[in-house]
Amino acid sequence: MSHQYQAKVYVTLHPSVLDPAGTAVRSGLIHMGHTQVEQVRIGKYVEVLLTAENEESARQQLDQICAQLLANPVIENYRFELHALAAIA
Amino acid sequence: MSHQYQAKVYVTLHPSVLDPAGTAVRSGLIHMGHTQVEQVRIGKYVEVLLTAENEESARQQLDQICAQLLANPVIENYRFELHALAAIA
Repeated sequence: MSHQYQAKVYVTLHPSVLDPAGTAVRSGLIHMGHTQVEQVRIGKYVEVLLTAENEESARQQLDQICAQLLANPVIENYRFELHALAAIA
Repeated sequence: MSHQYQAKVYVTLHPSVLDPAGTAVRSGLIHMGHTQVEQVRIGKYVEVLLTAENEESARQQLDQICAQLLANPVIENYRFELHALAAIA
């Protein structure tokens, strides 16, 4: 019997990596009057629905998925939360 | 005295809106052998650093920032978590 899992994956730039998109958003906000915004950094949020035998197997799959496709390990970190949904016969 | 706040903003597509980028990522994952992935939906994760008089004021600013720039209310939802950092004299 396998389980269905929902993963919430957060991908963020390493703190030392410049974020030109975030800087542009901050400039836009300041021009719009939000002058109290000091910094904006933009990342990705990905929801993945997958089936796996157990939570350990789901975590291993997700680690591969994140490292191979969702995040660029040279400039990005990732973390994820795993939520068990239904059991599948 | 004002405070510095960090906001973690999550922007997601409405459940009824198609996500072609997520579908493309899912196809890629299946071609890479991750055949147990059923769905992928891609959103944005934004970290905003701002100063405000108090938490209520920070929330109001962030609601405006999200509705005006970070999210497109026609097709996206947003939510945020607010963390108080340092007090500023």
